[in-house]
Amino acid sequence: MKNICINQELKFVEKLIKNDINAEKTISGLYKYIFKSKGKKIRARLSLISSSTKKHKDRFKLASIIELLHTATLVHDDVVDNSSIRRGKKSVNTEWSNSHGVLIGDYIYSKAFILMVEIGNKDILKELASATNDISQGELIQLDAIKNEEISLNKLKKISYFKTGRLFEAAAKTGAMLSSSNKSYIKGVSEYAKNLGILFQITDDLLDYSDSSDTGKPSYQDLKEGKVTYPFYYAYKNASKEEKSRLKNILVTKKLNKSSTNKLISRLNGIKETEKLAEKYYIQSIRCAKSINKLSVMQEMIELSDMALKRKK
Amino acid sequence: MKNICINQELKFVEKLIKNDINAEKTISGLYKYIFKSKGKKIRARLSLISSSTKKHKDRFKLASIIELLHTATLVHDDVVDNSSIRRGKKSVNTEWSNSHGVLIGDYIYSKAFILMVEIGNKDILKELASATNDISQGELIQLDAIKNEEISLNKLKKISYFKTGRLFEAAAKTGAMLSSSNKSYIKGVSEYAKNLGILFQITDDLLDYSDSSDTGKPSYQDLKEGKVTYPFYYAYKNASKEEKSRLKNILVTKKLNKSSTNKLISRLNGIKETEKLAEKYYIQSIRCAKSINKLSVMQEMIELSDMALKRKK
Repeated sequence: MKNICINQELKFVEKLIKNDINAEKTISGLYKYIFKSKGKKIRARLSLISSSTKKHKDRFKLASIIELLHTATLVHDDVVDNSSIRRGKKSVNTEWSNSHGVLIGDYIYSKAFILMVEIGNKDILKELASATNDISQGELIQLDAIKNEEISLNKLKKISYFKTGRLFEAAAKTGAMLSSSNKSYIKGVSEYAKNLGILFQITDDLLDYSDSSDTGKPSYQDLKEGKVTYPFYYAYKNASKEEKSRLKNILVTKKLNKSSTNKLISRLNGIKETEKLAEKYYIQSIRCAKSINKLSVMQEMIELSDMALKRKK
Repeated sequence: MKNICINQELKFVEKLIKNDINAEKTISGLYKYIFKSKGKKIRARLSLISSSTKKHKDRFKLASIIELLHTATLVHDDVVDNSSIRRGKKSVNTEWSNSHGVLIGDYIYSKAFILMVEIGNKDILKELASATNDISQGELIQLDAIKNEEISLNKLKKISYFKTGRLFEAAAKTGAMLSSSNKSYIKGVSEYAKNLGILFQITDDLLDYSDSSDTGKPSYQDLKEGKVTYPFYYAYKNASKEEKSRLKNILVTKKLNKSSTNKLISRLNGIKETEKLAEKYYIQSIRCAKSINKLSVMQEMIELSDMALKRKK
C-alpha cells in the first residue's frame, strides 16, 4: 500500500469523524472547532498502516477512534497546561473556558468508546482501555514532576512512554489485531510504534528548545510550565554547582532570557545528548520496522521514523 | 434480598474499589483521598438491587464500575463548577489543582472502562458507553445554559435526565442485563431508575434552596454559579416584570441576600412547584417499581424512592 493511498484513507477518516453532528449547537460548535484544525494524524496513520494487511470493514472506524482518543487527551492537556494555542489556533480553554475543555474532552472520549464497542473486538477494547489509563497516568506523573530538577532519566522515559508512546503502540497494535492473527506481526508493529512514539516525544521536546517559528509553538513552553524535559535533564546533569542553581532558578521562577538559556543548555550538551537519545530510539524503531515481514508496512514505517527524527514541527 | 444484605454488599464494592493501588504515590494518594469520603452510593445500590435476581460473579465488579463512573464525573464537575467542597471535604481541585482533577478523573474513567471490558458483555459496554457520552452532553448543555433565565422546562428536564437520570438508568439496566434476560424486567428497572434519577436531581435542586446545614453544602450554590434550576425556573415563570428583573440580577451578578432571595423564590411558588414536580416523578417511579415482577426488588426500589423524595442531604 503506497503512501498516497494512506493519505487518501486519512481523508476518509477525517470525514468519518466530522460526520458526527450533535443536535445541541454548543456541542456541535465545539466539536467542529476542534476537528477543523488539521493535526498530523500520525497515530491514525499508524493504525491504518498496521491494519493495511487486510481490508477489514472497521479499519477506518478504528483509525477514527485512535484520532478521537488522541484529540480528547490534547483537549484535556490544554486545560492541564493552561495552553492558549493548539495547532496554530486558540485552544478550547482559551476560546471557550476550562470547563468546556474538560467536558468536550469527556464527550470525545466517550464517542471513541461508543465506536470501540461497535467494533466489538474484546482484545482491541482491552488494549485501548489500558492505553487510555496509562496515558492519564503519564500525565499525572508529569504533573507531579513539575519543577523537580532532580527527576531521573527513567522517570522521564516513563513519562514519554506513557503519555506518548503508549497511544502510538496501541494504535499500531489494535490496527494489527484487526487485520491479522499473526502474533509476530502484532508484536513487531507494537514494538516499532512504541519506539516511534518515544522518538516523537523526544523530538517534540527538542523542538520546544529550538527557536524555529515553523513549529507554530512558543519556544521554551515546557520550561515556562516548569516541566523538565530531556534537554534540561542532560544540561542539569552536566552542570556545575553554580550552573545547577541557575537552571533551577529558571525552572522555578519560569523567568528566562531566551538567548542566555539557549547558550547555557547548548553549552552543557543538553541539545546534543537529547539528539543522541533521539537517534537511539530512531535506530531501535528502524530495527523493529525491518523485522516486519510485510514489505509495504515496513516501508511506511521507515518513512515515519525518518519523518519523526527530522521533523521541524 | 433484604436491605441489610445490600448494605453489606455495598461495603464489599467499596473494598473492591479501594483495592486498586497504583505504584505511583501521587496517583495512589489522590485515589485514596477521593474514595475515603463515603458517598451515598445510590447508583451502585441500584446496580446491586437490579442484579440481585441471580448471583452473577460480576455483580460487584459492575457496581464498582458504576461508582467509579459516577466518581469520575463528580471530580470533573468540581473542576467545571470550581467547587471547593465535595462530601464535606476539600475537592481535588482545591486540595491539589484543577489539573489534578482533570487527570485523576480521566484515570478513574479509564479504570471503569478496563473493568467493563473484563466483564466483556457487549450490551453492557454499549449501554455504559452511551450513558457516559450522555452525561458529558448533559453537563455541556447545562454549562451552555448558565445565566440563561429564559431556559425552557424541557431543557431543564433534559439536563436532569442526561446529567443524573442517565447514570441511574444505566446502573439499573446493566445490573438487570447481567442477571436476567427477561426484557420486561430490564425495561421495568430501567424506567424506574430513570425516574428515580430525575427525582433525585429535583430534590438536589430543592436542597440547594434550603438553609439546612444538614446538607453539608453551601446554600444557593447553583444560583451563585449562575445555574437556573427548577426553583428559579418556576419563580421566574410566575414573576412580574419587576420581579423578573430582580431575579435576573441575582443570576447575573451572583450577589444575593439569602433571606430576601428565599422570600422572593418562595412567594413566587418556586419551591412549591418544584415540590410538585418532585412528587410527579416520585409517583411515576413508584408506578414503575410496582410493575416489577420481583417482590424484593420492588420493595428496595420503593424504599429508594421514599428516601429520594424525603432526603435531607
